[in-house]
Amino acid sequence: MLKFMSNIDNNIIDSLESILGKQHVLTDYEDRYCYAYDATAVGDALYLPDVVVLPENKEQIAKIAKIADEHEIPIVTRAAGTNLVGGCLPVKGGIVLHTSRMNKILNIDKDNLLCVVQPGVVIEKLQQKVSDIGLFYPPDPASLKVSTIGGSIALSSGGPRGFKYGTTKDYVLGLEIVLADGTVLKTGGKTVKNVTGYNLTQLFVGSEGTLGIITEATLRLIPKPDEQQVMLVCFESMDLAAEAITGIISAKIMPATLDIMDKNTMQTIEKFYNAGFPTDMDAVLVIEVDGCKESASIQTQQIIEICNKFGAKNIRASKTQQEAEEIWFARRSAFGAVARLRPNVLTEDAVVPRDKIPEFIRRTRNIFDKYNLTVCIMGHAGDGNIHPNVSLDLRNKEEAENFEKAAEELFDAAIELGGSLSGEHGIGMSKSRFMKKALDENSILYMKGIKKLFDPKNILNPGKIFYE
Amino acid sequence: MLKFMSNIDNNIIDSLESILGKQHVLTDYEDRYCYAYDATAVGDALYLPDVVVLPENKEQIAKIAKIADEHEIPIVTRAAGTNLVGGCLPVKGGIVLHTSRMNKILNIDKDNLLCVVQPGVVIEKLQQKVSDIGLFYPPDPASLKVSTIGGSIALSSGGPRGFKYGTTKDYVLGLEIVLADGTVLKTGGKTVKNVTGYNLTQLFVGSEGTLGIITEATLRLIPKPDEQQVMLVCFESMDLAAEAITGIISAKIMPATLDIMDKNTMQTIEKFYNAGFPTDMDAVLVIEVDGCKESASIQTQQIIEICNKFGAKNIRASKTQQEAEEIWFARRSAFGAVARLRPNVLTEDAVVPRDKIPEFIRRTRNIFDKYNLTVCIMGHAGDGNIHPNVSLDLRNKEEAENFEKAAEELFDAAIELGGSLSGEHGIGMSKSRFMKKALDENSILYMKGIKKLFDPKNILNPGKIFYE
Repeated sequence: MLKFMSNIDNNIIDSLESILGKQHVLTDYEDRYCYAYDATAVGDALYLPDVVVLPENKEQIAKIAKIADEHEIPIVTRAAGTNLVGGCLPVKGGIVLHTSRMNKILNIDKDNLLCVVQPGVVIEKLQQKVSDIGLFYPPDPASLKVSTIGGSIALSSGGPRGFKYGTTKDYVLGLEIVLADGTVLKTGGKTVKNVTGYNLTQLFVGSEGTLGIITEATLRLIPKPDEQQVMLVCFESMDLAAEAITGIISAKIMPATLDIMDKNTMQTIEKFYNAGFPTDMDAVLVIEVDGCKESASIQTQQIIEICNKFGAKNIRASKTQQEAEEIWFARRSAFGAVARLRPNVLTEDAVVPRDKIPEFIRRTRNIFDKYNLTVCIMGHAGDGNIHPNVSLDLRNKEEAENFEKAAEELFDAAIELGGSLSGEHGIGMSKSRFMKKALDENSILYMKGIKKLFDPKNILNPGKIFYE
Repeated sequence: MLKFMSNIDNNIIDSLESILGKQHVLTDYEDRYCYAYDATAVGDALYLPDVVVLPENKEQIAKIAKIADEHEIPIVTRAAGTNLVGGCLPVKGGIVLHTSRMNKILNIDKDNLLCVVQPGVVIEKLQQKVSDIGLFYPPDPASLKVSTIGGSIALSSGGPRGFKYGTTKDYVLGLEIVLADGTVLKTGGKTVKNVTGYNLTQLFVGSEGTLGIITEATLRLIPKPDEQQVMLVCFESMDLAAEAITGIISAKIMPATLDIMDKNTMQTIEKFYNAGFPTDMDAVLVIEVDGCKESASIQTQQIIEICNKFGAKNIRASKTQQEAEEIWFARRSAFGAVARLRPNVLTEDAVVPRDKIPEFIRRTRNIFDKYNLTVCIMGHAGDGNIHPNVSLDLRNKEEAENFEKAAEELFDAAIELGGSLSGEHGIGMSKSRFMKKALDENSILYMKGIKKLFDPKNILNPGKIFYE
């Protein structure tokens, strides 16, 4: 006999089975267990859904929503679950709606530079498909090999390319949404310019599954740059690296990527991967430029000159695709390396104005030092988006508590420096208690008003964004 | 003795004077008359405000809003009044709030590539100031010599550069807003990446003054491209021009501008300005490329090759800044030339998927031919944004009625081709009756819900966007 956390009962399970077929309604403990967590490290906590449903179209989703609405049952929509702020956790039980069966690229329209996709399409798959015909979908969250378009729209995901190309929000032209009561809403359209009423599209982008369930998205594509060139540049101090970044931007160069890693990160990468990086440098930049071949070469040359002017100690510039991939391998292995240090790794995500990066990194180090926690700092320096990765053992209560205290001080620092709580990971469950630090009371009040308008019974991903 | 259209009385005028000083509260008929119209041709109709106020800061605006809220008096915020859909018209009387005194650029932050401005800053002035230090604010509505940042945010204005650089919405990072009840709201921030709660910023962008009064904006800047090169390319048919456009985009070139003009437009320009353009060509493209010098030259060369392949009859490519300006002069004089044909010119603004442009232009011509109206078609071909400019005499009742009928058929055509009512001019008063064609009932319902949340008494720019 199943024991449900929400208002679900066996009649409702029967209804769900009649909508979806028995095989797409999971009620076994073992099955549901797989959906009780996401990529967020939460220690021993377990958030078990009452049921997991696997719909394949919007009609089914609308029917599920109608049932959930009638009985006030939570719906948590998810796919790969790469969320880092507990966004996919069914903290009040109820239904986990998994979009894995809605994974079709419905149309790639080369003439109009757009595509229409279902929410379960894996980002890398879409990027590959459009790349094959010379097009480019720039948003590149680190998890893109498994994470999906639906999740990246719900979280307005970013990635290293945010500085030059913007983030997911800049590529969403239109959405099809199922609302809490099963209403199907279409927003936006197929054109880059569109000012027909309020921008509902951008209201849903980044709303973390709390306003509606994305069932289809129309995304903007751009022509693929011919050439990418990558540089790895080392500096003896964070300040020099920051000055070089300012120098690059002042020279009117907009690199596709302008990532930064600190000494701890480099040492950790070397410890596990032996990639041949210097371990005595305070800061390393990974800079990618793109464009036509000529333009990329000119940018590379200019950046090398600027970095040398600011005392760069070691510059590796890719001459071949192979060399570029080697540099990217190092950058990408950073998180994996940090994850091997201790049982858990918690990735934070703050954003500060670009010129405050060195000060923020200094403060970040001091804060985690104070709490005796190992932090490896990486980030997207172009857009001021800094990710401190903290290695710890969440079973150790003192460490876990220290992390909570350090995180709070970290966000205080980000906000004091003119930044905010999240550049690309969202608020979810983990950061909802900090919302009052970042936003004034009225903003939160009106956001809650919008939530109430679209989801009056609070059934869509309850317990997220807003601290209750 | 003044006769008021709204709930204003002499006590309220006294209160406004005590907030703003007597000289910043205009009640004389002659003064108010100046604010009874905007750039929209409305024939003999006159929309006289009861009072015009000229605040200089948000505190004053908050006090004005509190009074308006208490007495349910409409507030219509405006600046230069270049709106083409009746957006600035005080159709229910009340207060016109003019932002001309809030015209300060508060900060240009070169390191963080952003600026903070008041709403009354003229767009060209901001562009010039940031250009002086090597930066670029791309949004370029045709009216930029007089129109202001506040208005362009309220309308999410576009311009020729929309295809490559996006529109105003893509440059607004944060806003300070006074709501209908005088509450001051801050949205967004100083960073390009920011996912802290719902995107209230983009809800206000394009809301046409119906949700709040913009009192300050934080805008994103980008590095200024070193070089611009402009081409004027003639084609014997619209279809060939459209094929050339597709050819350019397929070659992975993203011109900064990809404007199109039809034969009527060219003939009209020649009639008044004698700019030396061919008058027997069906379509003319004005193409601007930018980037570093090398990249711009490569793009120009490739575009010339592609246009030749699609049968271009006449290509003028600028070799100097002077030549570039000559081509732009012709493009910019198009509207002025059309305006000289007859007493009035009505500019429409529709948007269709790029590959539907030739079909839409064909239908547009047929529609206006049917109603015996002269139409000159220009548009931003890169983003499918087409402006039919109709010369007529609004005192002629038949012509005015024919225009209304033609406009309705025009939007039916745009929507049938997968487009929408407006690319960059907004809905305002003129197009509110077409909203049901473009949006489903639920979208309008939820937009009205949002309006009610932020402006429960419907005092902010009433009678706009939604058909009442």
